[in-house]
Amino acid sequence: MTTAVQMVQMIRQGETTAVGLVSAAFDKIAETNDALQAWAWLDRDAALAHAAALDSLRQSGRTMGPLHGVPVGLKDIIDTAAMPTACGSQPLAGRQPDADAFLVSRLRSAGAVVIGKTTTTAFAFMDPAATRNPHNYDYSPGGSSAGSAAAVAAGHVPVAVGTQTNGSVIRPASFCGVYAVKPSFGMISRDGVLRTSQTFDQVGVFANALEDAALVTDVLADFDPHDEGCFWRPRPQLCAGLASLRSQDPHFAWFDMPYFDRLAADAHAGLMDTVARLGNRVEQVSAPISFAELIEAHAVIQTYEIPRNLDRIRQEFGDIFPPELGKLMAHGATISDKAYDDAMQCRMAAIDYFASCFDKFDAVLTPAALGEAPLFSESITGNPICSTVWTLAGLPCVTLPLLRSAHEMPIGVQLVGAAEADDKLFGVANWLDGYLRQK
Amino acid sequence: MTTAVQMVQMIRQGETTAVGLVSAAFDKIAETNDALQAWAWLDRDAALAHAAALDSLRQSGRTMGPLHGVPVGLKDIIDTAAMPTACGSQPLAGRQPDADAFLVSRLRSAGAVVIGKTTTTAFAFMDPAATRNPHNYDYSPGGSSAGSAAAVAAGHVPVAVGTQTNGSVIRPASFCGVYAVKPSFGMISRDGVLRTSQTFDQVGVFANALEDAALVTDVLADFDPHDEGCFWRPRPQLCAGLASLRSQDPHFAWFDMPYFDRLAADAHAGLMDTVARLGNRVEQVSAPISFAELIEAHAVIQTYEIPRNLDRIRQEFGDIFPPELGKLMAHGATISDKAYDDAMQCRMAAIDYFASCFDKFDAVLTPAALGEAPLFSESITGNPICSTVWTLAGLPCVTLPLLRSAHEMPIGVQLVGAAEADDKLFGVANWLDGYLRQK
Repeated sequence: MTTAVQMVQMIRQGETTAVGLVSAAFDKIAETNDALQAWAWLDRDAALAHAAALDSLRQSGRTMGPLHGVPVGLKDIIDTAAMPTACGSQPLAGRQPDADAFLVSRLRSAGAVVIGKTTTTAFAFMDPAATRNPHNYDYSPGGSSAGSAAAVAAGHVPVAVGTQTNGSVIRPASFCGVYAVKPSFGMISRDGVLRTSQTFDQVGVFANALEDAALVTDVLADFDPHDEGCFWRPRPQLCAGLASLRSQDPHFAWFDMPYFDRLAADAHAGLMDTVARLGNRVEQVSAPISFAELIEAHAVIQTYEIPRNLDRIRQEFGDIFPPELGKLMAHGATISDKAYDDAMQCRMAAIDYFASCFDKFDAVLTPAALGEAPLFSESITGNPICSTVWTLAGLPCVTLPLLRSAHEMPIGVQLVGAAEADDKLFGVANWLDGYLRQK
Repeated sequence: MTTAVQMVQMIRQGETTAVGLVSAAFDKIAETNDALQAWAWLDRDAALAHAAALDSLRQSGRTMGPLHGVPVGLKDIIDTAAMPTACGSQPLAGRQPDADAFLVSRLRSAGAVVIGKTTTTAFAFMDPAATRNPHNYDYSPGGSSAGSAAAVAAGHVPVAVGTQTNGSVIRPASFCGVYAVKPSFGMISRDGVLRTSQTFDQVGVFANALEDAALVTDVLADFDPHDEGCFWRPRPQLCAGLASLRSQDPHFAWFDMPYFDRLAADAHAGLMDTVARLGNRVEQVSAPISFAELIEAHAVIQTYEIPRNLDRIRQEFGDIFPPELGKLMAHGATISDKAYDDAMQCRMAAIDYFASCFDKFDAVLTPAALGEAPLFSESITGNPICSTVWTLAGLPCVTLPLLRSAHEMPIGVQLVGAAEADDKLFGVANWLDGYLRQK
């Protein structure tokens, strides 16, 4: 599959045009999307018109952006002024935002062509969407960024944008066999993205190559005073981090997580094989914090915040929430402010611990999911628990599609870096990707 | 004087700190600002606290922005949430905006330290400010970006931001002997900048080196959907343009402008000497449009728009406008919609002409001002006419401090490029600067 980096290069060398790339994307979508259901909205005419405008800029000698002509998909909880944004909810079908999300402006000024909106579970929670897994239609792509993961895995688009509140970027990427990054908390503005949890909602990127994930994240990552979680400090440059040469092999930390007894046998075996191949580059680290407590704290914070944020939807549209989300909405109201405050304290302790421990190693090596994707017939999106601790602490995470299940389904290997050191994480990820792909 | 590029390099190499740079800036300001009056507001404590935060990021190994630790001044019509923004008007003293202008966010995320607000003429019009010219206090620095030009020329800060509606960046830069750029219309967002004319208001940058002007413009230039004049296309990269190697010498166009009979004798002689040194690299071009008509069209549009935009101020604060602006406010109300529409048509014809003519040459060579700065005692800000046509057409302009008057006051040489080809213009400017500084 052609990467975004290759597409831009091909346009630069006159080997293709933005119209050519966008047409090809729609041809590919026409072949498989009836079965896959990766898209909630597509607008071929608008995308081709945008591509034609980019081609005419190119012909007039104007500057090309870093994503000039690249077709991109956006999870359908990201506001677009030119397309509806239904948040995966039938009652919101046709809802037309007034303005683009901040990140859409970033894509536009980089020259990307937003060709449509990708399927999301309703309100980005855990009730499954209609999307299928491109590797085997009997399987689910996971969630909540189901369509973004599937559209990239199916080669409809080289890159797509999703969001993660627990494991909604890393998990579907693992299930669908693509690369994905959930950058440090505060790197990418969430202005104009459906808010479910102000503490955990984060934007992430799916791609078929690490360099594409780096390129798109570099474009999206920018300070936006309209998102109070967005930090004003300079952004680590992921493309530069990816390209940086290492003077020595990286050093990985391995934490024994309380959920490892739930790893599928094939996923466990694959990870152990990976650890064995890395030899003394991996060190088992024991943390002076309880990961089980952190996972519980994440649940408390998320369950407290989601109903309070979605109450706006309830007031406007009524009780339109699907079963899993409905249960959480009801439960959330019973969580006390005290319990929430305690959980936030617990989160701060985790942030403090992770702020100091990364001087002893370069990245945490850990599973991206408990195993292969669930079957579509199970009507679940899979367990996000392999992401919970890292999301809680706001650390940058990347998943690499390096393992296979006994059924030949993809399984990801996750790397976690120090906060706001996403550039370094990408350097380590590039090393690991190259090392493990050697015969 | 140390440039911004050098400052960032010094921090990178551990030779200084952000606190060191900001302290030095305030020491320099203390020496001369009582006489110069370049600053409308300074906040030493806040600037040092910001610098200390940047130093601690640096020490913790976090990413450095392209302007890490660089002290910057902002014309006092640019909104800052942390400092008053009085627009050069006593009745607005202490006015505290709710939010930073878009460009302030850009500076902040690049690591710059906004140390204060620079003096502006009232509402950026032509009634002079109290600021003096650093080269000789008997002279005016020009206007309206008086303090930004003077603060850079005096070495208080390496770079400062101003605005231009007619000639308010290029003219004071010429008078004060510094470099300045007024980029293509739509490159830099004006969100949060006092609006006087939606058609002409543009943000510009003052510096003591071309590379600093390029660096700051690259930081500021970004798409912002909140400014309807801001284009969504990728920004030309000025630093890259500056560094690009030319395969052949540039080709300059010389237009005979209707105001050349008003050039001071020394300015005229300096320009003619420059043209002579460039030999056959300069070609006289005759345009199929009337520049006199364009200058008249600019006056009509500006005079129509300014009173309508400033009416908000009048409603809130009453009739607080100084004499020159007061006259314009009164006159503006008499301009008919028809006259305005005709002038806008005339502007479109100019844009059309300049869209095609730059394939025959690389840049227009033209004066930045009619001569040296006016005397302070004249109580004028100087004639902006050398900028009018280029501002009208939204073309990128840069002024180089290459000439001297008979009184040893600075005079600038202006280069004008094709719309949205600011990168190429900077390559040409760099060539000319190097060529004319050869013995």
